[in-house]
Amino acid sequence: MKDKNISVAVIRRLPKYHRYLKELLDKDIRRISSKELSSIIGFTASQIRQDLNNFGGFGQQGYGYNVEDLYSEISKILGLTRKYNVVIVGAGNLGQALANYTSFGRLGFDLKAMFDINPKFMGLKINDVEVLDMDKFESFVNENDVEIVYICTSRAGAQDVADRIQKTNVKAIWNFAPIDLKVKEDIIVENVHLIDNLLTVSYFLKENL
Amino acid sequence: MKDKNISVAVIRRLPKYHRYLKELLDKDIRRISSKELSSIIGFTASQIRQDLNNFGGFGQQGYGYNVEDLYSEISKILGLTRKYNVVIVGAGNLGQALANYTSFGRLGFDLKAMFDINPKFMGLKINDVEVLDMDKFESFVNENDVEIVYICTSRAGAQDVADRIQKTNVKAIWNFAPIDLKVKEDIIVENVHLIDNLLTVSYFLKENL
Repeated sequence: MKDKNISVAVIRRLPKYHRYLKELLDKDIRRISSKELSSIIGFTASQIRQDLNNFGGFGQQGYGYNVEDLYSEISKILGLTRKYNVVIVGAGNLGQALANYTSFGRLGFDLKAMFDINPKFMGLKINDVEVLDMDKFESFVNENDVEIVYICTSRAGAQDVADRIQKTNVKAIWNFAPIDLKVKEDIIVENVHLIDNLLTVSYFLKENL
Repeated sequence: MKDKNISVAVIRRLPKYHRYLKELLDKDIRRISSKELSSIIGFTASQIRQDLNNFGGFGQQGYGYNVEDLYSEISKILGLTRKYNVVIVGAGNLGQALANYTSFGRLGFDLKAMFDINPKFMGLKINDVEVLDMDKFESFVNENDVEIVYICTSRAGAQDVADRIQKTNVKAIWNFAPIDLKVKEDIIVENVHLIDNLLTVSYFLKENL
Protein backbone atom coordinates (compact mmCIF):
# COMPACT_ATOMS: atom_id res chain seq x y z
CA MET A 1 0.00 0.00 0.00
CA LYS A 2 1.41 3.38 -0.98
CA ASP A 3 0.39 6.67 0.59
CA LYS A 4 2.51 9.03 -1.44
CA ASN A 5 -0.05 11.79 -1.09
CA ILE A 6 0.39 12.07 2.68
CA SER A 7 2.99 14.69 3.60
CA VAL A 8 6.04 13.75 5.64
CA ALA A 9 4.94 16.22 8.34
CA VAL A 10 1.72 14.25 8.81
CA ILE A 11 3.60 10.93 8.78
CA ARG A 12 5.89 12.18 11.55
CA ARG A 13 2.84 12.97 13.68
CA LEU A 14 1.22 9.54 13.13
CA PRO A 15 3.36 7.65 15.70
CA LYS A 16 2.02 10.00 18.39
CA TYR A 17 -1.57 9.25 17.36
CA HIS A 18 -0.65 5.57 17.34
CA ARG A 19 0.73 5.79 20.88
CA TYR A 20 -2.29 7.62 22.30
CA LEU A 21 -4.85 5.47 20.51
CA LYS A 22 -3.16 2.38 22.00
CA GLU A 23 -3.54 3.91 25.47
CA LEU A 24 -7.25 4.54 24.80
CA LEU A 25 -7.71 0.95 23.63
CA ASP A 26 -5.92 -0.31 26.73
CA LYS A 27 -8.46 1.67 28.78
CA ASP A 28 -11.25 0.15 26.68
CA ILE A 29 -12.27 3.54 25.27
CA ARG A 30 -13.92 2.76 21.94
CA ARG A 31 -14.77 6.14 20.48
CA ILE A 32 -13.44 9.65 20.87
CA SER A 33 -14.18 13.11 19.44
CA SER A 34 -11.48 15.23 17.83
CA LYS A 35 -11.96 17.65 20.76
CA GLU A 36 -11.27 14.95 23.38
CA LEU A 37 -8.37 13.60 21.33
CA SER A 38 -7.03 17.14 21.14
CA SER A 39 -7.11 17.53 24.92
CA ILE A 40 -5.01 14.41 25.50
CA ILE A 41 -2.66 14.58 22.51
CA GLY A 42 -1.98 18.31 22.48
CA PHE A 43 -2.63 18.99 18.78
CA THR A 44 -5.60 21.30 17.98
CA ALA A 45 -8.91 19.60 17.09
CA SER A 46 -8.72 21.16 13.63
CA GLN A 47 -5.17 19.81 13.12
CA ILE A 48 -6.40 16.36 14.15
CA ARG A 49 -9.36 16.44 11.75
CA GLN A 50 -7.08 17.61 8.95
CA ASP A 51 -4.45 14.93 9.68
CA LEU A 52 -6.95 12.09 9.95
CA ASN A 53 -8.89 13.19 6.86
CA ASN A 54 -5.78 12.18 4.91
CA PHE A 55 -6.74 8.55 5.14
CA GLY A 56 -10.46 8.29 4.90
CA GLY A 57 -13.63 9.01 6.81
CA PHE A 58 -12.99 7.71 10.29
CA GLY A 59 -14.63 10.66 11.98
CA GLN A 60 -18.41 11.00 11.92
CA GLN A 61 -20.33 14.11 12.93
CA GLY A 62 -21.79 13.51 16.40
CA TYR A 63 -19.99 10.17 16.83
CA GLY A 64 -16.30 10.98 16.69
CA TYR A 65 -13.63 8.48 15.79
CA ASN A 66 -13.80 4.73 16.21
CA VAL A 67 -10.60 4.21 18.20
CA GLU A 68 -9.97 0.64 17.10
CA ASP A 69 -10.48 1.34 13.37
CA LEU A 70 -8.31 4.43 13.54
CA TYR A 71 -5.57 2.57 15.44
CA SER A 72 -5.60 -0.27 12.98
CA GLU A 73 -5.52 2.07 9.98
CA ILE A 74 -2.60 4.07 11.39
CA SER A 75 -0.77 0.82 12.19
CA LYS A 76 -1.20 -0.18 8.55
CA ILE A 77 0.08 3.16 7.26
CA LEU A 78 3.12 2.95 9.55
CA GLY A 79 3.93 -0.50 8.20
CA LEU A 80 3.21 -2.27 11.51
CA THR A 81 1.18 -5.16 10.12
CA ARG A 82 4.26 -7.33 9.76
CA LYS A 83 7.59 -8.03 11.49
CA TYR A 84 11.00 -6.59 10.67
CA ASN A 85 14.26 -8.38 11.43
CA VAL A 86 16.73 -6.00 13.03
CA VAL A 87 20.34 -6.00 14.25
CA ILE A 88 22.26 -3.46 16.31
CA VAL A 89 25.84 -2.52 15.48
CA GLY A 90 27.65 -1.16 18.53
CA ALA A 91 27.15 -3.01 21.81
CA GLY A 92 28.11 -0.13 24.11
CA ASN A 93 25.69 1.59 26.48
CA LEU A 94 23.45 2.99 23.76
CA GLY A 95 23.25 -0.30 21.84
CA GLN A 96 22.47 -2.12 25.07
CA ALA A 97 19.81 0.44 25.98
CA LEU A 98 18.09 -0.12 22.60
CA ALA A 99 18.38 -3.91 22.99
CA ASN A 100 16.59 -3.61 26.32
CA TYR A 101 13.62 -1.62 24.96
CA THR A 102 11.01 -4.35 24.85
CA SER A 103 8.50 -1.99 23.25
CA PHE A 104 10.36 -2.13 19.93
CA GLY A 105 9.91 -5.90 19.87
CA ARG A 106 6.23 -5.63 20.74
CA LEU A 107 5.73 -3.36 17.71
CA GLY A 108 7.30 -5.99 15.46
CA PHE A 109 10.98 -4.98 15.37
CA ASP A 110 12.62 -8.34 16.08
CA LEU A 111 16.18 -7.98 17.33
CA LYS A 112 18.18 -10.89 15.90
CA ALA A 113 21.74 -10.06 16.99
CA MET A 114 24.12 -7.33 18.07
CA PHE A 115 27.55 -6.71 16.56
CA ASP A 116 30.72 -5.11 17.81
CA ILE A 117 34.44 -5.11 17.06
CA ASN A 118 35.45 -4.98 20.73
CA PRO A 119 36.42 -8.45 22.03
CA LYS A 120 35.12 -7.59 25.49
CA PHE A 121 31.52 -7.69 24.24
CA MET A 122 31.80 -11.03 22.37
CA GLY A 123 29.36 -13.66 23.57
CA LEU A 124 27.62 -11.20 25.89
CA LYS A 125 23.84 -11.58 25.90
CA ILE A 126 21.63 -8.53 26.24
CA ASN A 127 17.98 -9.37 26.73
CA ASP A 128 18.67 -12.86 25.29
CA VAL A 129 20.33 -11.45 22.18
CA GLU A 130 23.95 -12.33 21.56
CA VAL A 131 26.76 -9.95 20.64
CA LEU A 132 28.62 -11.25 17.57
CA ASP A 133 31.85 -10.23 15.90
CA MET A 134 31.55 -7.79 13.00
CA ASP A 135 33.35 -10.42 10.88
CA LYS A 136 30.04 -12.24 10.71
CA PHE A 137 27.96 -9.16 9.89
CA GLU A 138 27.35 -9.51 6.14
CA SER A 139 26.62 -13.24 6.17
CA PHE A 140 24.37 -12.98 9.24
CA VAL A 141 22.17 -10.14 7.95
CA ASN A 142 21.71 -11.78 4.56
CA GLU A 143 20.98 -15.23 5.99
CA ASN A 144 18.53 -13.82 8.52
CA ASP A 145 16.68 -11.44 6.19
CA VAL A 146 17.62 -8.44 8.30
CA GLU A 147 15.97 -5.30 6.97
CA ILE A 148 16.97 -2.65 9.50
CA VAL A 149 20.31 -1.91 11.20
CA TYR A 150 20.49 0.37 14.23
CA ILE A 151 23.92 2.04 14.13
CA CYS A 152 25.10 2.74 17.70
CA THR A 153 28.82 3.06 17.02
CA SER A 154 31.01 6.09 17.53
CA ARG A 155 31.09 8.78 14.89
CA ALA A 156 34.36 7.35 13.60
CA GLY A 157 32.98 3.87 12.97
CA ALA A 158 29.58 4.69 11.51
CA GLN A 159 30.39 5.32 7.84
CA ASP A 160 32.33 2.06 7.67
CA VAL A 161 29.26 0.21 8.94
CA ALA A 162 27.12 2.03 6.38
CA ASP A 163 29.53 0.99 3.62
CA ARG A 164 29.28 -2.65 4.68
CA ILE A 165 25.48 -2.43 4.90
CA GLN A 166 25.35 -1.36 1.26
CA LYS A 167 26.86 -4.68 0.22
CA THR A 168 24.01 -6.59 1.89
CA ASN A 169 20.24 -6.81 1.46
CA VAL A 170 19.57 -4.45 4.37
CA LYS A 171 17.09 -1.74 3.40
CA ALA A 172 17.15 0.77 6.22
CA ILE A 173 19.47 2.34 8.78
CA TRP A 174 18.44 3.88 12.07
CA ASN A 175 21.50 5.98 12.80
CA PHE A 176 22.49 7.28 16.23
CA ALA A 177 26.04 8.31 15.35
CA PRO A 178 26.51 12.09 15.05
CA ILE A 179 27.26 12.01 11.33
CA ASP A 180 25.27 12.23 8.12
CA LEU A 181 25.96 8.90 6.43
CA LYS A 182 26.67 8.66 2.72
CA VAL A 183 24.63 5.80 1.26
CA LYS A 184 22.96 4.83 -1.99
CA GLU A 185 19.56 6.44 -2.49
CA ASP A 186 17.66 3.17 -2.14
CA ILE A 187 18.70 2.80 1.50
CA ILE A 188 16.45 4.55 3.99
CA VAL A 189 18.33 6.48 6.66
CA GLU A 190 16.59 7.86 9.72
CA ASN A 191 18.85 9.82 12.06
CA VAL A 192 18.62 10.42 15.77
CA HIS A 193 21.05 13.29 16.09
CA LEU A 194 20.99 13.85 19.83
CA ILE A 195 23.16 16.95 19.77
CA ASP A 196 20.85 18.66 17.30
CA ASN A 197 18.01 18.02 19.71
CA LEU A 198 19.97 19.22 22.74
CA LEU A 199 20.88 22.47 20.99
CA THR A 200 17.21 23.32 20.59
CA VAL A 201 16.99 23.02 24.41
CA SER A 202 19.71 25.65 24.85
CA TYR A 203 18.05 27.82 22.21
CA PHE A 204 14.71 27.76 24.03
CA LEU A 205 16.47 28.33 27.38
CA LYS A 206 18.14 31.43 26.00
CA GLU A 207 14.86 32.64 24.50
CA ASN A 208 12.96 32.14 27.78
CA LEU A 209 15.33 34.20 29.94
CA MET B 1 19.06 38.19 22.89
CA LYS B 2 15.66 37.19 21.58
CA ASP B 3 15.02 35.87 18.08
CA LYS B 4 11.27 35.47 18.23
CA ASN B 5 10.99 36.17 14.52
CA ILE B 6 12.91 33.04 13.52
CA SER B 7 10.59 30.08 12.93
CA VAL B 8 10.99 26.86 14.89
CA ALA B 9 11.61 24.99 11.63
CA VAL B 10 14.67 27.17 10.95
CA ILE B 11 15.85 26.80 14.56
CA ARG B 12 15.70 23.02 14.25
CA ARG B 13 17.94 23.19 11.17
CA LEU B 14 20.53 25.44 12.87
CA PRO B 15 22.31 22.66 14.84
CA LYS B 16 23.09 20.98 11.53
CA TYR B 17 24.64 24.18 10.16
CA HIS B 18 26.51 24.51 13.44
CA ARG B 19 27.91 21.00 13.11
CA TYR B 20 29.05 21.42 9.49
CA LEU B 21 30.51 24.88 10.03
CA LYS B 22 32.58 23.48 12.91
CA GLU B 23 33.92 20.79 10.57
CA LEU B 24 34.86 23.47 8.02
CA LEU B 25 36.64 25.52 10.70
CA ASP B 26 38.51 22.40 11.85
CA LYS B 27 39.71 22.03 8.25
CA ASP B 28 40.67 25.71 8.26
CA ILE B 29 38.15 26.57 5.55
CA ARG B 30 37.34 30.24 6.06
CA ARG B 31 34.72 31.01 3.46
CA ILE B 32 32.12 29.06 1.58
CA SER B 33 29.40 29.74 -1.00
CA SER B 34 25.79 28.70 -0.45
CA LYS B 35 26.30 26.27 -3.36
CA GLU B 36 29.28 24.54 -1.72
CA LEU B 37 27.52 24.54 1.64
CA SER B 38 24.53 22.97 -0.09
CA SER B 39 26.64 20.14 -1.51
CA ILE B 40 28.00 19.16 1.91
CA ILE B 41 24.97 19.83 4.09
CA GLY B 42 22.25 18.52 1.77
CA PHE B 43 19.84 21.48 1.92
CA THR B 44 19.29 23.40 -1.34
CA ALA B 45 21.35 26.55 -1.86
CA SER B 46 18.16 28.59 -1.89
CA GLN B 47 17.04 27.03 1.41
CA ILE B 48 20.43 27.90 2.89
CA ARG B 49 20.29 31.52 1.72
CA GLN B 50 16.77 31.83 3.06
CA ASP B 51 17.66 30.27 6.44
CA LEU B 52 20.80 32.34 6.90
CA ASN B 53 19.12 35.58 5.81
CA ASN B 54 17.10 35.29 9.02
CA PHE B 55 19.97 36.60 11.05
CA GLY B 56 21.75 39.23 9.03
CA GLY B 57 23.98 39.64 6.02
CA PHE B 58 26.64 37.03 6.37
CA GLY B 59 26.60 36.09 2.73
CA GLN B 60 28.09 38.47 0.20
CA GLN B 61 27.65 38.20 -3.54
CA GLY B 62 30.83 36.75 -5.03
CA TYR B 63 32.38 36.06 -1.64
CA GLY B 64 30.06 33.61 0.06
CA TYR B 65 29.82 33.17 3.80
CA ASN B 66 32.53 33.90 6.32
CA VAL B 67 32.56 30.52 8.09
CA GLU B 68 33.86 31.81 11.43
CA ASP B 69 31.37 34.70 11.67
CA LEU B 70 28.49 32.44 10.68
CA TYR B 71 29.54 29.75 13.18
CA SER B 72 29.84 32.27 15.97
CA GLU B 73 26.47 33.86 15.14
CA ILE B 74 24.70 30.48 15.05
CA SER B 75 26.40 29.53 18.34
CA LYS B 76 24.99 32.72 19.85
CA ILE B 77 21.48 32.04 18.54
CA LEU B 78 21.61 28.48 19.91
CA GLY B 79 22.59 29.81 23.34
CA LEU B 80 26.07 28.27 23.23
CA THR B 81 27.99 31.28 24.52
CA ARG B 82 27.70 30.10 28.12
CA LYS B 83 27.66 26.91 30.18
CA TYR B 84 24.64 24.96 31.44
CA ASN B 85 24.70 22.78 34.51
CA VAL B 86 23.03 19.47 33.83
CA VAL B 87 22.08 16.28 35.70
CA ILE B 88 20.86 12.94 34.42
CA VAL B 89 18.05 11.06 36.17
CA GLY B 90 18.22 7.34 35.41
CA ALA B 91 21.65 5.70 35.52
CA GLY B 92 20.80 2.71 33.33
CA ASN B 93 22.30 2.09 29.90
CA LEU B 94 20.80 5.16 28.26
CA GLY B 95 21.78 7.49 31.12
CA GLN B 96 25.30 6.05 31.04
CA ALA B 97 25.48 6.45 27.28
CA LEU B 98 24.58 10.15 27.59
CA ALA B 99 27.08 10.61 30.45
CA ASN B 100 29.79 9.23 28.18
CA TYR B 101 29.09 11.62 25.29
CA THR B 102 31.97 14.02 25.71
CA SER B 103 30.68 16.22 22.91
CA PHE B 104 27.83 17.51 25.11
CA GLY B 105 30.38 18.76 27.62
CA ARG B 106 32.48 20.39 24.91
CA LEU B 107 29.42 22.38 23.80
CA GLY B 108 28.93 23.68 27.34
CA PHE B 109 26.53 21.15 28.88
CA ASP B 110 28.32 20.40 32.16
CA LEU B 111 27.18 17.13 33.71
CA LYS B 112 27.22 17.63 37.50
CA ALA B 113 25.68 14.37 38.76
CA MET B 114 23.52 11.40 37.90
CA PHE B 115 20.58 10.20 39.99
CA ASP B 116 18.83 6.88 40.41
CA ILE B 117 16.63 5.08 42.89
CA ASN B 118 18.31 1.71 42.37
CA PRO B 119 20.86 0.98 45.16
CA LYS B 120 23.05 -0.98 42.72
CA PHE B 121 24.06 2.25 40.96
CA MET B 122 24.88 4.28 44.10
CA GLY B 123 28.43 5.57 44.20
CA LEU B 124 29.12 4.39 40.66
CA LYS B 125 31.15 6.86 38.62
CA ILE B 126 30.47 7.28 34.90
CA ASN B 127 33.01 9.43 33.11
CA ASP B 128 34.01 10.89 36.53
CA VAL B 129 30.42 11.79 37.42
CA GLU B 130 28.91 10.15 40.47
CA VAL B 131 25.50 8.49 40.71
CA LEU B 132 23.56 9.88 43.70
CA ASP B 133 20.37 8.79 45.41
CA MET B 134 17.18 10.53 44.28
CA ASP B 135 16.70 11.60 47.92
CA LYS B 136 19.31 14.25 47.27
CA PHE B 137 17.82 15.42 43.96
CA GLU B 138 16.03 18.66 44.93
CA SER B 139 18.77 19.98 47.20
CA PHE B 140 21.53 19.10 44.74
CA VAL B 141 19.99 20.75 41.69
CA ASN B 142 19.15 23.94 43.57
CA GLU B 143 22.56 24.19 45.25
CA ASN B 144 24.38 23.53 41.98
CA ASP B 145 22.29 25.85 39.76
CA VAL B 146 21.25 22.97 37.54
CA GLU B 147 19.20 24.23 34.58
CA ILE B 148 18.61 21.10 32.53
CA VAL B 149 17.64 17.55 33.55
CA TYR B 150 17.98 14.67 31.11
CA ILE B 151 15.26 12.15 32.02
CA CYS B 152 16.44 8.61 31.21
CA THR B 153 14.08 6.68 33.45
CA SER B 154 11.44 4.18 32.43
CA ARG B 155 8.07 5.42 31.26
CA ALA B 156 6.65 4.64 34.71
CA GLY B 157 9.13 6.81 36.59
CA ALA B 158 9.30 9.84 34.31
CA GLN B 159 6.26 11.87 35.42
CA ASP B 160 7.32 11.55 39.05
CA VAL B 161 10.72 13.02 38.15
CA ALA B 162 8.99 15.82 36.22
CA ASP B 163 6.81 16.57 39.27
CA ARG B 164 9.88 16.83 41.48
CA ILE B 165 11.66 19.03 38.93
CA GLN B 166 8.81 21.52 39.10
CA LYS B 167 9.55 22.14 42.78
CA THR B 168 13.14 23.18 41.94
CA ASN B 169 14.79 25.94 39.90
CA VAL B 170 15.40 23.65 36.92
CA LYS B 171 14.24 25.28 33.68
CA ALA B 172 14.36 22.56 31.07
CA ILE B 173 13.84 18.82 30.60
CA TRP B 174 15.38 16.70 27.90
CA ASN B 175 13.06 13.71 28.03
CA PHE B 176 13.90 10.25 26.69
CA ALA B 177 11.02 8.40 28.38
CA PRO B 178 8.23 7.39 25.97
CA ILE B 179 5.64 9.67 27.56
CA ASP B 180 4.46 13.24 27.10
CA LEU B 181 5.22 14.85 30.46
CA LYS B 182 2.75 17.18 32.14
CA VAL B 183 4.63 20.24 33.41
CA LYS B 184 4.00 23.93 34.02
CA GLU B 185 4.28 26.07 30.92
CA ASP B 186 7.46 27.81 32.04
CA ILE B 187 9.44 24.57 31.88
CA ILE B 188 10.91 23.73 28.50
CA VAL B 189 10.45 20.10 27.47
CA GLU B 190 12.28 18.62 24.51
CA ASN B 191 11.43 15.00 23.77
CA VAL B 192 13.45 12.27 22.13
CA HIS B 193 10.68 9.79 21.43
CA LEU B 194 12.66 6.95 19.90
CA ILE B 195 9.63 4.86 18.98
CA ASP B 196 8.11 7.74 17.02
CA ASN B 197 11.33 7.91 15.06
CA LEU B 198 11.52 4.15 14.51
CA LEU B 199 7.95 4.07 13.19
CA THR B 200 8.89 6.48 10.42
CA VAL B 201 11.52 3.89 9.41
CA SER B 202 8.85 1.19 9.04
CA TYR B 203 6.63 3.67 7.18
CA PHE B 204 9.36 4.45 4.64
CA LEU B 205 10.23 0.74 4.34
CA LYS B 206 6.63 -0.05 3.51
CA GLU B 207 6.48 2.81 1.01
CA ASN B 208 9.69 1.74 -0.72
CA LEU B 209 8.59 -1.83 -1.40
